Amino acid sequence: MANMNWELHAEGIWKTVIGEPSAMTPLSSMGCNPLKEELASMGEGSLPFSNESVQVDRTSSSFIVRLPLEKQERIYGLGLHFMKMNHRGRTRYLRVNSDPKQDTGETHAPVPFYVTDRGYGLLIDTSRIVTVHCGSTMRLNETAAEQVKDRNTDRGWKATLESEYVEVCLPLEGAEVYLIAGPAIIDVVRRYNLLCGGGTLPPKWGLGFWHRVPTLYNADQVMEEAQQFREKDFPCDVIGLEPGWHSKSYPVTGEWSRERFPDPAKMVNTLKQNGFQVNLWEHPFVSPDSSLYDKLLPLSGNYSVWGGIAPDYTLPEAREVYQQQHLEEHLNIGVSGYKLDECDGSELTRNSWMFPAHAQFPSGYDGEQLRQVYGLLFQKMTDDLYRKQNRRTYGLVRASNAGTSSMPYVLYSDLYDHKQFIRALCNASFSGLLWTPEVRKATSAEDWVRRMQVVCLSPLAMLNAWGDGTKPWSYPEVEPIIRHYIKLRMRLLPYLYNAFAQYRYKGIPPFRAMPLVMDTSDMQSVSETGAALNTTDGAYGKKVEREWDDQFMVGDSLLVAPLIAGEHARDVLLPQGIWYGFETGERFEGNQIVRVEPGLETMPIFVKDGAIIPTIAARAHAPRPGEKVPLHLIHFGEAPGSIELYDDDGETFAYEQGEHQWVNFTVTRSDQGIFSGAASKESVDLQSYSEIKWTYQAKRLPEDHTN
Amino acid sequence: MANMNWELHAEGIWKTVIGEPSAMTPLSSMGCNPLKEELASMGEGSLPFSNESVQVDRTSSSFIVRLPLEKQERIYGLGLHFMKMNHRGRTRYLRVNSDPKQDTGETHAPVPFYVTDRGYGLLIDTSRIVTVHCGSTMRLNETAAEQVKDRNTDRGWKATLESEYVEVCLPLEGAEVYLIAGPAIIDVVRRYNLLCGGGTLPPKWGLGFWHRVPTLYNADQVMEEAQQFREKDFPCDVIGLEPGWHSKSYPVTGEWSRERFPDPAKMVNTLKQNGFQVNLWEHPFVSPDSSLYDKLLPLSGNYSVWGGIAPDYTLPEAREVYQQQHLEEHLNIGVSGYKLDECDGSELTRNSWMFPAHAQFPSGYDGEQLRQVYGLLFQKMTDDLYRKQNRRTYGLVRASNAGTSSMPYVLYSDLYDHKQFIRALCNASFSGLLWTPEVRKATSAEDWVRRMQVVCLSPLAMLNAWGDGTKPWSYPEVEPIIRHYIKLRMRLLPYLYNAFAQYRYKGIPPFRAMPLVMDTSDMQSVSETGAALNTTDGAYGKKVEREWDDQFMVGDSLLVAPLIAGEHARDVLLPQGIWYGFETGERFEGNQIVRVEPGLETMPIFVKDGAIIPTIAARAHAPRPGEKVPLHLIHFGEAPGSIELYDDDGETFAYEQGEHQWVNFTVTRSDQGIFSGAASKESVDLQSYSEIKWTYQAKRLPEDHTN
Repeated sequence: MANMNWELHAEGIWKTVIGEPSAMTPLSSMGCNPLKEELASMGEGSLPFSNESVQVDRTSSSFIVRLPLEKQERIYGLGLHFMKMNHRGRTRYLRVNSDPKQDTGETHAPVPFYVTDRGYGLLIDTSRIVTVHCGSTMRLNETAAEQVKDRNTDRGWKATLESEYVEVCLPLEGAEVYLIAGPAIIDVVRRYNLLCGGGTLPPKWGLGFWHRVPTLYNADQVMEEAQQFREKDFPCDVIGLEPGWHSKSYPVTGEWSRERFPDPAKMVNTLKQNGFQVNLWEHPFVSPDSSLYDKLLPLSGNYSVWGGIAPDYTLPEAREVYQQQHLEEHLNIGVSGYKLDECDGSELTRNSWMFPAHAQFPSGYDGEQLRQVYGLLFQKMTDDLYRKQNRRTYGLVRASNAGTSSMPYVLYSDLYDHKQFIRALCNASFSGLLWTPEVRKATSAEDWVRRMQVVCLSPLAMLNAWGDGTKPWSYPEVEPIIRHYIKLRMRLLPYLYNAFAQYRYKGIPPFRAMPLVMDTSDMQSVSETGAALNTTDGAYGKKVEREWDDQFMVGDSLLVAPLIAGEHARDVLLPQGIWYGFETGERFEGNQIVRVEPGLETMPIFVKDGAIIPTIAARAHAPRPGEKVPLHLIHFGEAPGSIELYDDDGETFAYEQGEHQWVNFTVTRSDQGIFSGAASKESVDLQSYSEIKWTYQAKRLPEDHTN
Repeated sequence: MANMNWELHAEGIWKTVIGEPSAMTPLSSMGCNPLKEELASMGEGSLPFSNESVQVDRTSSSFIVRLPLEKQERIYGLGLHFMKMNHRGRTRYLRVNSDPKQDTGETHAPVPFYVTDRGYGLLIDTSRIVTVHCGSTMRLNETAAEQVKDRNTDRGWKATLESEYVEVCLPLEGAEVYLIAGPAIIDVVRRYNLLCGGGTLPPKWGLGFWHRVPTLYNADQVMEEAQQFREKDFPCDVIGLEPGWHSKSYPVTGEWSRERFPDPAKMVNTLKQNGFQVNLWEHPFVSPDSSLYDKLLPLSGNYSVWGGIAPDYTLPEAREVYQQQHLEEHLNIGVSGYKLDECDGSELTRNSWMFPAHAQFPSGYDGEQLRQVYGLLFQKMTDDLYRKQNRRTYGLVRASNAGTSSMPYVLYSDLYDHKQFIRALCNASFSGLLWTPEVRKATSAEDWVRRMQVVCLSPLAMLNAWGDGTKPWSYPEVEPIIRHYIKLRMRLLPYLYNAFAQYRYKGIPPFRAMPLVMDTSDMQSVSETGAALNTTDGAYGKKVEREWDDQFMVGDSLLVAPLIAGEHARDVLLPQGIWYGFETGERFEGNQIVRVEPGLETMPIFVKDGAIIPTIAARAHAPRPGEKVPLHLIHFGEAPGSIELYDDDGETFAYEQGEHQWVNFTVTRSDQGIFSGAASKESVDLQSYSEIKWTYQAKRLPEDHTN
């Protein structure tokens, strides 16, 4: 065992290099530029132990990094996981893989970055697979005799003993390792996001509603379906096309099918006139029938997938070929982004597909490395492409890893368990990831409603009807509920945009799992108090620690606690303070568990006392650049409050050159109990808003005056 | 790419060594002594390609062995798999792991030995993890343009192209590799089993019925429950005790709980008097409270599991300690065998448990190696222990690997999907493994019946009531059906024993998946003909190749086609020839698919025309050594036939010193159509049988005269 040599990499972040790792890593591939000023403003933070407590051991097959672990310490993060939020006691094999139905650590976006509630984080930056034993290993010389119990007779027997260490198995070659300071979990996660260059700031239209059409639709069908949204008064910002837009797919040409899309430029333009962006599905594997093929063939790996080549996008030449073609055929006619499918690989579905770990690429990297970073390369390559056009994009991606906080991409999956989908949304927030619990179909109208409700309060509100041909109005009996929630999302656009601005500038995740919001010790004590009241849990005296991985914060002020089909009531863990039912107006005291029975038409959302929620009227689509709309600042409750409202053009990167504003709005209460709001600037000239209207002391969200 | 240097290892088996692998391998750990005479009698066999077609490549992380693959070539084996029988198109990561709910290759008993229907087999002998790409990888320079289809429009699009190679990823250090000749699949499997020293021959009592009692039962409860079997006329040979017999478990002491078992010797003896053997559950991890602990501590790995030590049983000193204690406390009081639980490890259940891959053992081997062979070591260690006592054992084990054909152990799992259980039974037969679809509980009386029916025609007929407290009579409404099938098993004891004798001496698996019995091309053509008649399958013109992994042969003459709950009818693939419903007498022409609708009381079993099935009357338990019972040879149908009947003392290893007989019985039909049977020896003196009775031309199994 040896100590490691740590260097201060940025304020609150230490770095060391173990072994002689490959220079190609997630963070280097992403060109992560830490936001050093913002990191400095956070201060030096603190670690719960000295750097010397972190030890490294060399074995025949790897390096083992060992960190101390306390008895009740909870371990969060490690990427997009579906079955646990606290990974304590689990082993995480962090390999990129599709459709993770078992809790092994393999997933679309495994991230070798964890944060514990003792208040620190560890990040391994490597293009190879890492295994993290989250207290799932117990060294013999640390096995405490008193922990060893007799399962025959002792109800206190536990399947996993309280190990005293986290053990991280690095690749044979070693890796770059970062220690990240707390003290709070959210401080660690902020620092991680800032290390990655800050979070992403989507274009405003990205936060509207997305609809993906059936894969074999032609242009007329696409335009007709889009038009239906307008006619039926269902907001929609983005129309997504699926594999059928390609002249051939699986593998892909990347070229428009002339048969189905004889004039794609016209279609895109027509849609744009009607307020729709176009998003194109693709996957990595290039068809021999593609014009890209001959250029990319010498720049590809030595294994094909579905008969297509797997280009080596670590090579600038390969990226240029891809980007040039995408610019000419897609961006130049107005396409707004991509759905980057199948960059993960799978042995878990009916057929195995992907280049193998032993595949060789012209860069000299192998299949294991390329698979771990393939999703990253596509994100960066397309984001760069749009940046060069000074346009922001927002899209979807099926694989990710560390270093992607600044990437404008949201993860999705072919899985469909709704509880797991909500958990994944929570988990993503620890790892600089975004996740959409996309809706595709439903087992009932109730299931339809519950899924649509939560997707409308998620990072990307989308109906993916590629295979099912569903529409938001597919269940007529609940159509008004669906319309209501999509419109709610549209009203909340400024609030959501603000949350993303905090992400961009301060590294604060826009969507937050509960441990990012509350001390876990408070969570535990509140839960234990609550559990005593619910005698169905905790039978036989066992404390079952509830993870609260079924509710999350959106921004600073809204807490979302979805129901799934079959549930008619649920417990909600409310943090300290006073809360109001966002749509009911009911008042709740926080720092406790409350039980709600909302009815199908309502998803439980709670707003903090004193919150100022910036809203606009629900519209068919997000405001266009240059279009000004009235801003309605809604103050809730009885407490004073304030908000830093962010504004920019919502579409370009001009904000990075200073063309943006932060305006502080404050609500105060006079001695006479009169509430009033004021801006920090004397004259407020927000480029997106024509006027500012105030509501004070709201208990529930007022009706939309456009309804 | 290089050719490999093959040496003839035995008739029909070539061997090469790649790299510098560890000397500790499955086959070497098992001390496999090939049955060279029997191999020689099989002849030199044939390979479908020259040895030069097998190539090896060195990459940065492994050796890749590449073998040619034909378009429709089917790949079987690779261990105990639950989701596929033909692994073509799949990637198999052959790591030992518990509860495999996804089709990755990880399983309780992954075996790096496959056989294809082109007629050869490949075996990798290594204590490390092997990955086999069963045509799931496609090298770029082999990607045929005409295979690349457009998924948008081409219904012939396939998710997995027809790769031209199997690729086997060896560990970094290399491995020992064997090529095994065909030409038939069963020839390859036979040679593999003979390479491993032949199959296992259980004691006769092992083929009776097993019942495991609830874990916390005390001696009185155990004896009372055993007595109930006798009173209720349910045969039973083995009573299994679960963790509660230990003074402490998880981790284990290996010592009798004085509280629950104050006089274990008396209990075992009492049970023996009543015809019951005792089988003891254990797992590897030794408790600090065990008398074994101090001796084994310095001989253990540096990680604990459940607070217990993981002894290094590659060390003879460690084995001696274990064996001595087991001899003194278990064997010497008459215990007949073990259930070797939890030697697999798991990251798939609610809690991860096992020593990690980087664990170090005193032998110098690491955790990866010990985990891959742990199940093997326990099998060999306990088998050797019983051999020294000149007693055969039969038991259960939760992990295995290559080289274990001669081990008297049957695999089982905490999984419970019945279709998967039946598929695992079929799959085990390609890999020198035995599997029991043990019964524990049921969702309905129908489910109970269907599970009990098939377990009674499986390698080990067992009700494992450790947690559920079920009994064969737990569903009173179907009690007669259960009794009938347990008694059927007892009647078939000589037939089952004969099948195992073929396994022992000739390497022929006693339970056989259909590709071991029929040419796969015949299976395919029969299936295609059949499919045209069943228009619900094969809709849209797609040929869905049915694997027939839901039926199997038992011995040479019986075909079992179980139903699962919810099914009321099923298709059965009958091989060439005439068949009779074993219990119905219905006549069927083979080489086709037949449809049967058996009713709950019947599991479809088919007997070959001309078969001679040796039976005895159903008894409470297997005949004791020295006990002679009448043998009833039942000839079926209208064809002549013959059987090599095997006999020995059924309990010791005297048979290995020549104390056994093979007697040929033949049934002939005279010109007048009279059937008669005769033995090859003039005077037949079988040690197990008092007399021989014949039945000729049976169409269905006659009633048991003891019923």
